[in-house]
Amino acid sequence: MSPFTGSAIRTERWRHLRLTVDDGVATITLDRPDKLNALTFGAYADLRDLLAELSRERSVRALVLGGEGRGFCSGGDVDEIIGATLAMDTAQLLDFNRMTGQTVRALRECPFPVIAAVHGVAAGAGAVLALAADFRVADPTARFAFLFTRVGLSGGDMGAAYLLPRVVGLGHATRLLMLGDPVGAAEAERIGLISELTEAGDAGIRAAALARRLAEGPALAYAQTKALLTAELDMPLAASVELDASTQALLMHGEDYAEFHAAFTEKRPAKWQGR
Amino acid sequence: MSPFTGSAIRTERWRHLRLTVDDGVATITLDRPDKLNALTFGAYADLRDLLAELSRERSVRALVLGGEGRGFCSGGDVDEIIGATLAMDTAQLLDFNRMTGQTVRALRECPFPVIAAVHGVAAGAGAVLALAADFRVADPTARFAFLFTRVGLSGGDMGAAYLLPRVVGLGHATRLLMLGDPVGAAEAERIGLISELTEAGDAGIRAAALARRLAEGPALAYAQTKALLTAELDMPLAASVELDASTQALLMHGEDYAEFHAAFTEKRPAKWQGR
Amino acid sequence: MSPFTGSAIRTERWRHLRLTVDDGVATITLDRPDKLNALTFGAYADLRDLLAELSRERSVRALVLGGEGRGFCSGGDVDEIIGATLAMDTAQLLDFNRMTGQTVRALRECPFPVIAAVHGVAAGAGAVLALAADFRVADPTARFAFLFTRVGLSGGDMGAAYLLPRVVGLGHATRLLMLGDPVGAAEAERIGLISELTEAGDAGIRAAALARRLAEGPALAYAQTKALLTAELDMPLAASVELDASTQALLMHGEDYAEFHAAFTEKRPAKWQGR
Repeated sequence: MSPFTGSAIRTERWRHLRLTVDDGVATITLDRPDKLNALTFGAYADLRDLLAELSRERSVRALVLGGEGRGFCSGGDVDEIIGATLAMDTAQLLDFNRMTGQTVRALRECPFPVIAAVHGVAAGAGAVLALAADFRVADPTARFAFLFTRVGLSGGDMGAAYLLPRVVGLGHATRLLMLGDPVGAAEAERIGLISELTEAGDAGIRAAALARRLAEGPALAYAQTKALLTAELDMPLAASVELDASTQALLMHGEDYAEFHAAFTEKRPAKWQGR
Repeated sequence: MSPFTGSAIRTERWRHLRLTVDDGVATITLDRPDKLNALTFGAYADLRDLLAELSRERSVRALVLGGEGRGFCSGGDVDEIIGATLAMDTAQLLDFNRMTGQTVRALRECPFPVIAAVHGVAAGAGAVLALAADFRVADPTARFAFLFTRVGLSGGDMGAAYLLPRVVGLGHATRLLMLGDPVGAAEAERIGLISELTEAGDAGIRAAALARRLAEGPALAYAQTKALLTAELDMPLAASVELDASTQALLMHGEDYAEFHAAFTEKRPAKWQGR
Repeated sequence: MSPFTGSAIRTERWRHLRLTVDDGVATITLDRPDKLNALTFGAYADLRDLLAELSRERSVRALVLGGEGRGFCSGGDVDEIIGATLAMDTAQLLDFNRMTGQTVRALRECPFPVIAAVHGVAAGAGAVLALAADFRVADPTARFAFLFTRVGLSGGDMGAAYLLPRVVGLGHATRLLMLGDPVGAAEAERIGLISELTEAGDAGIRAAALARRLAEGPALAYAQTKALLTAELDMPLAASVELDASTQALLMHGEDYAEFHAAFTEKRPAKWQGR
């Protein structure tokens, strides 16, 4: 348990998603397979709150986000979200859209790498959740569709107009966000949207293997790499170089750096502590 | 007509380019085929002024920019621009270069998507006009050449040193802007400079079809998608997420969003109003 | 000699790398082939100081950075750098990491294009040096590995978390910096990390040819192109367009621009002066 814990108690049961934690690897599974894991208000809120809780703890070193059943996530539920928002006033609409954006920020800012395991459909908000992950491990059935304009909304949803140009370039991002056309796995890999293309059916197992590798490695180094990648998208070169310098100076005081040198000198594998 | 109209009268005749407007789709054609549509001072000024006028109206929902004859646009005219600028003083040179830059800003900031229909040469300023569009629909004869250094100028012309790295990455952008070498359609597609590669001779017809699709769709959603893509290139993540949230809240009050839900529920195609 | 020279004297002998200058082309060769050109404190310091001296002079118009022997550069020396830093205090660690970052900033900010000639291994700091160059001319033996996390450090080293997402996109950059896995020449070319892929063994000769071309061309135009590409990564669109306008106005007063027009009119090759 982190020493930076006050009176707040941990959530006892996550009702809108499935969580397992196994020796440093958390796995979140969207678990409404009959609805292609369509997101509800509760699912968004649970994702936001769970990521916040996990970020405060020291126990999680890598996270896998996947979907049960035939696909990853079909996005916001047409009835439970689109229908419901039609009856909302402005303040409620802002609250809803801020919540979804907070989920994306939590994925980008949590202190451990996030791996989206994608098979089948990743559509709408589901595509953005995958986009906000650090790795997208996908099998050939994966297809991404940023279909916001198809429901009359902006393609810039949950940070997509910020993130997608930085992942695949402005040209591809404009096409995908403006038109909402589906992108298959082959094209997604070609333009840099997929990090690792697996054999059919292997997205989950490969994502789990990557998470295991990350959790057993120098986890603080990974966490800082993620933090710097996130921060330096918004920073100029000179400041980025300074941030890198102070980060490395910090990590050079750490146990893992010393352990690398000892292991290298003794010609044995390093035993990473993640600090 | 927009209510935000004052005393200024609309331009009656565009003398340096050809304009047609057909049910929400404006088509601008560079029309000096004997000079490969080389740009003159008048052509730049007309592009700048026309985009400003179209941006103030509500009638245009998509724009196609193409070239008459053998190619898209060969860039600034060697005699009428390069020759003329050699006699200019500093204030005039600044005015000229600001005008060309304003054209690019107008393409990025106008409230409707812009589709460049590219066949044959898109060179110099012609390449930057295509680059500033939201979509580049090109056929296999298309070739792009940012040949500013070849006339002794900076490859950073009209925002090219800003835009090209964001479209194709810094490595490719450095090579293209520094050397000015032509890039054929196959490579342009591979690096993300072409949005849609068509059959030979079909760039114009496919660009028109895309414009028609955009004009008949949820045009306000498209306009906001474009505005957010443009804005969020210059914004940090947290602010982008907030902008997305307020934009979606706004559009969730709109008619198209309600229409989507009604059409979905009634199992019929949506009738988009663009508001 | 530049008129902007004071009392400081030029370094007489660079002890930690090899320098040749031939008619405007400087060639820096990392020259510890028995150690795969592993970098030492002295090599970093010499690179930083040499780039500063060359940047103050008018004589160099292009620079090639290569490695002697079996590869380009294997990164920081395990004994002479990693071992030594383990005994350092915080101020020393900051000084070391700032020095390496200053080397990257010098490569990005020097007023001439830099071409990395890469064969074999470009690992760790060696990969970042190549990344910071304007061109990466590489042969099929080249492989890049940003292996910082493998020694327990952040993948954001020397500006890598700033530069790599801007060269290859955030998705690929996350994978490469987080995992430190080697990237072969074919993949490096596909994702935009290699500017020119040569025949086996030809990286050096092709890099030299490119440097020669740049040195004999409109060198001031090239220098400004580089400066604008570097600056505009950190600037918004409107300011970039204004910077482009003032830069072009300046260069339109220059001799090379007039020379282009004279040569074009007289149907002869231009004689570039680089001013």
